[in-house]
Amino acid sequence: MSSHTDRLAALRAQLATDALDGFVVPLTDEHLSEYVGAYAQRLAWLTGFEGSAGTAVVLPEAAAIFTDGRYTLQVREQVSGDDWHYVPVPQESVAGWLAEHASDGARIGYDPWLHTSAWVAEAGKALAARGAVLVAVEANPIDRVWAEQPTPSDAKLAPYADALAGRSSADKRGEIAAWLEVRGTDAVVLSALDSIAWTFNIRGGDVDNTPVALAYAIVHADATADLFVASDKLTDDVRRHLGNAVRLHERSDFAGALTGFAGKRVVADPAGSVAAIFDALEAGGARVVAMRDPVLLAKACKNPAEVAGHEAAQLRDAGAMVRFLRWIEAEAPKGGQTELSAAAKLRECREATGKLMDLSFNSISATGAHGAIPHYHVTEESNAPILPGQLYLIDSGGQYLDGTTDITRVVPVGAPTPEMRDRFTRVLRGHIAIATAIFPEGTVGGQLDSFARRPLWEAGLDFSHGTGHGVGAYLAVHEGPQRIAAPNYPGGGPAEPLLAGMLLSNEPGYYKAGEYGIRIENLILTEPREVPGADRAMLGFRTLTFVPIERELIEPALLSPQEREWIDGYHAEVLAKVGPTLEGEDRAWLTAKCAPLG
Amino acid sequence: MSSHTDRLAALRAQLATDALDGFVVPLTDEHLSEYVGAYAQRLAWLTGFEGSAGTAVVLPEAAAIFTDGRYTLQVREQVSGDDWHYVPVPQESVAGWLAEHASDGARIGYDPWLHTSAWVAEAGKALAARGAVLVAVEANPIDRVWAEQPTPSDAKLAPYADALAGRSSADKRGEIAAWLEVRGTDAVVLSALDSIAWTFNIRGGDVDNTPVALAYAIVHADATADLFVASDKLTDDVRRHLGNAVRLHERSDFAGALTGFAGKRVVADPAGSVAAIFDALEAGGARVVAMRDPVLLAKACKNPAEVAGHEAAQLRDAGAMVRFLRWIEAEAPKGGQTELSAAAKLRECREATGKLMDLSFNSISATGAHGAIPHYHVTEESNAPILPGQLYLIDSGGQYLDGTTDITRVVPVGAPTPEMRDRFTRVLRGHIAIATAIFPEGTVGGQLDSFARRPLWEAGLDFSHGTGHGVGAYLAVHEGPQRIAAPNYPGGGPAEPLLAGMLLSNEPGYYKAGEYGIRIENLILTEPREVPGADRAMLGFRTLTFVPIERELIEPALLSPQEREWIDGYHAEVLAKVGPTLEGEDRAWLTAKCAPLG
Repeated sequence: MSSHTDRLAALRAQLATDALDGFVVPLTDEHLSEYVGAYAQRLAWLTGFEGSAGTAVVLPEAAAIFTDGRYTLQVREQVSGDDWHYVPVPQESVAGWLAEHASDGARIGYDPWLHTSAWVAEAGKALAARGAVLVAVEANPIDRVWAEQPTPSDAKLAPYADALAGRSSADKRGEIAAWLEVRGTDAVVLSALDSIAWTFNIRGGDVDNTPVALAYAIVHADATADLFVASDKLTDDVRRHLGNAVRLHERSDFAGALTGFAGKRVVADPAGSVAAIFDALEAGGARVVAMRDPVLLAKACKNPAEVAGHEAAQLRDAGAMVRFLRWIEAEAPKGGQTELSAAAKLRECREATGKLMDLSFNSISATGAHGAIPHYHVTEESNAPILPGQLYLIDSGGQYLDGTTDITRVVPVGAPTPEMRDRFTRVLRGHIAIATAIFPEGTVGGQLDSFARRPLWEAGLDFSHGTGHGVGAYLAVHEGPQRIAAPNYPGGGPAEPLLAGMLLSNEPGYYKAGEYGIRIENLILTEPREVPGADRAMLGFRTLTFVPIERELIEPALLSPQEREWIDGYHAEVLAKVGPTLEGEDRAWLTAKCAPLG
Repeated sequence: MSSHTDRLAALRAQLATDALDGFVVPLTDEHLSEYVGAYAQRLAWLTGFEGSAGTAVVLPEAAAIFTDGRYTLQVREQVSGDDWHYVPVPQESVAGWLAEHASDGARIGYDPWLHTSAWVAEAGKALAARGAVLVAVEANPIDRVWAEQPTPSDAKLAPYADALAGRSSADKRGEIAAWLEVRGTDAVVLSALDSIAWTFNIRGGDVDNTPVALAYAIVHADATADLFVASDKLTDDVRRHLGNAVRLHERSDFAGALTGFAGKRVVADPAGSVAAIFDALEAGGARVVAMRDPVLLAKACKNPAEVAGHEAAQLRDAGAMVRFLRWIEAEAPKGGQTELSAAAKLRECREATGKLMDLSFNSISATGAHGAIPHYHVTEESNAPILPGQLYLIDSGGQYLDGTTDITRVVPVGAPTPEMRDRFTRVLRGHIAIATAIFPEGTVGGQLDSFARRPLWEAGLDFSHGTGHGVGAYLAVHEGPQRIAAPNYPGGGPAEPLLAGMLLSNEPGYYKAGEYGIRIENLILTEPREVPGADRAMLGFRTLTFVPIERELIEPALLSPQEREWIDGYHAEVLAKVGPTLEGEDRAWLTAKCAPLG
């Protein structure tokens, strides 16, 4: 295997051949996915960086890697300072750095299948200021020099039963067609993988942790559609399921198809579709209507079948979590367990349900100081023993056919300190404040976020991540557009009005660097709320995750009577719902954990 | 006096003479002021509309008046439906309406001294879609047909003592110069009247309720300045106060001066300065740097002298409020009092301090159903008797040399109903939640707003205005950029980080249409907060208004122990601070009102 220094040299040689003076390497795929397949891990191949967000820029004499505050340390460990400059974002931008370091008149390449049009416009403008230009490449130069580049997955597509989806694909396409009709438009391009999976009631296996397939789709105002997906993924079963109104094409024919809309009004999402899609539509003479992917909201608002499926998945997952928590509570104090062994045990508990399709993300199995890293990812190198006196944090989830779960619990190994109990109780109070919030229709997630922080603020503390993200229905564990986060949180999710049926996480935390981390995460469903005497329509949340919250970490004296009532009521519900699914010692353990607080 | 129908006809005739096919009439002045002088009340003259926000558009065959939800009823009462279409904003926009109703190829006039460049761009774009154009007029056509148009006020300027301002004007201009230097710019245009008053430590009398003078200024990177103000406003005293580094010019010479910056980098605020200023700078060859008025933040963060002055003004104002509240509590049940008589009595109480310069806005003196109109303005026509069983709401403030006040209290006439007490207590709980908030540096107002609403949300209720606005130091009672409001509130104020020294109102409310209104308003000062064990810098609020909150309206059973502690502590502080300034029955009344809740 070549060294990263060799790879950088090979890329520079390729750029010279292509008459380019630089190239930009983002971490995404042609669908702007959050998690990408191995074939699209170009940034990691080139630099060695394994974080989940970053960009590299290669010039003839300089190269830079751009990462945010989460990866300040990691990028220095994984990427050689001899070859690369470390540049912090958002303090600096790729466009700004390029404008400063590119030579006058330089031709900087980019892959138009990996950037939004907005990025191209911004970077192009910054370069123009010094006479340089951005050049869209025909083929990604990294793919030419990456000898062992994995081929995209050949996983088969599978139909997703209408009974689980709650609606047929024809019905969904009919809704999209009506939406197009109202706007006087002819078609919409779908490129987000989960939008496509949802629309056609299909699932795939091309991306870790998210059951989607690499595909594109165009839905027309007559409710027919073109689906672009590798034909070797298609079984007879899937072909029957899709039916005659869905015309099937090779994925590689997509770009060509986009040029066939001369004079038509075609919708594409500038935030969710790459620049190449807009370029191709415009090259073919389409009148491009930039609007948000119409599937986003429809997919975010779960229907009764999806809610029922999610409830079943949660109870199943709760049984696995209870078995795991009982195990780690007993085993950790004996010594010999590690972050990896615990994560393996939890996977085993989930697999024992017989229904686990996949984890919904790599479990964050973090003990002691590792818990203070909100996005900690355990590896063979980082794997730490679980020791007495620590808090062990486990943030994990399962993909089941009927639903996607995501839960975080904290387990004290031995007796927690008074400070740990104080901090945990503050986080719990924030969690309860979200769980019990009632708010008028039209309220956006950014209006609720501070409820989760106030108990920490009162102690001069805070946490530096959002409070809640959307969750899919046997789809992505991170799903937009809704989000509970500070209004100035990047990405706009906090400005999205919350609607009945939206599924979110509720996960405030507290992190003491070098010592421990706390996070309490349940999933919550947005529902209408009848309030006697109300003068407007109100919404609230129903908690759907049923796993005890560790009582040894709760300081009851810090809770208000209402907060105590909530936690006791929650535990009573956990016992009533999950208890009957357990037997013997598991059930006894749960019963003890769910007793009212003393 | 001509009828509004005649005035509309006269304007149309003038437009025909000017070869215009339409004209836009906003409600503002050349400084984009919130309150404008009589000479600038063109919308009211033309249409009869007396609300505080609106726009008219006149075409040859149609005319429309645009108002928001607050004025839906009022505009129909004051403006003839025979002559005018009523158009709701923000549901429709002036630009959109023009694009729909203007004739193909029309020339639509606008006064470039009364619109932002952003408005001109938006409206121009909408008109271009049908081949029509926006045309900047040389002189406002209304001014040509408005025979009795008042001349601008000739009030004199007065120096504002450095001891009250806390800093000399030279010091402030030095800070602005340093700010320009850092940004590599040569000068900044100031057109907001309170920015100018603050920068030069001067006050004027050209606008009701706000002690500012009609003026423009240009501050240079060498800390000298040009001040454009009518010379008949200048006394020898003011000339001495301004000194030699401030060059004085007639206000009418301002536009010409803007064309003298060829090749210079000149800062102007696109949100605070009109299009004509940008047009003139560009016509003269300046390189215009669009940035926020640098005075805004400096003015918003009060220095120790301003805080001390404000504290003194608040105690003085509290004495007047106590005398008024004692009076109305005694007199209202006897009958014979009205909204106007009560407002007059309050003014008398404030004037009796011997220090009142002006009211800080027209008092909102509203009884019964009028209280449910948050921006109610009492007139001879609307004046209602104050009757038993009502809640009387009084929102008012004074301008004193040492500070600007703004306070709202509610007085029950006779025994309040349980519902009134419930609602009042919920509003009080929201008020307390803001008053006691502690939050990290960097928190924006939009993150705090929901604390004020949660007790109402829990009952299915809300209020439809912001929770808090900035307040000036013997300047505008509404001052930016900070604001406590929902993050999606128009104008961007909720996205402004709160900084130590920012003075804000804290004024949640509840409004039951047709029955009563409740609002509890104090002013609060943003301050650093030392929190033991804090891991970051924290801020909090100190309440500066000291007037009892009516105990008969509080239902103690609805308060948490902490909330009871706050209200009892607040009343103890009111008594300790204001009691010594009162005598006899006033003091006895205050003592009774400030006793701990039963």
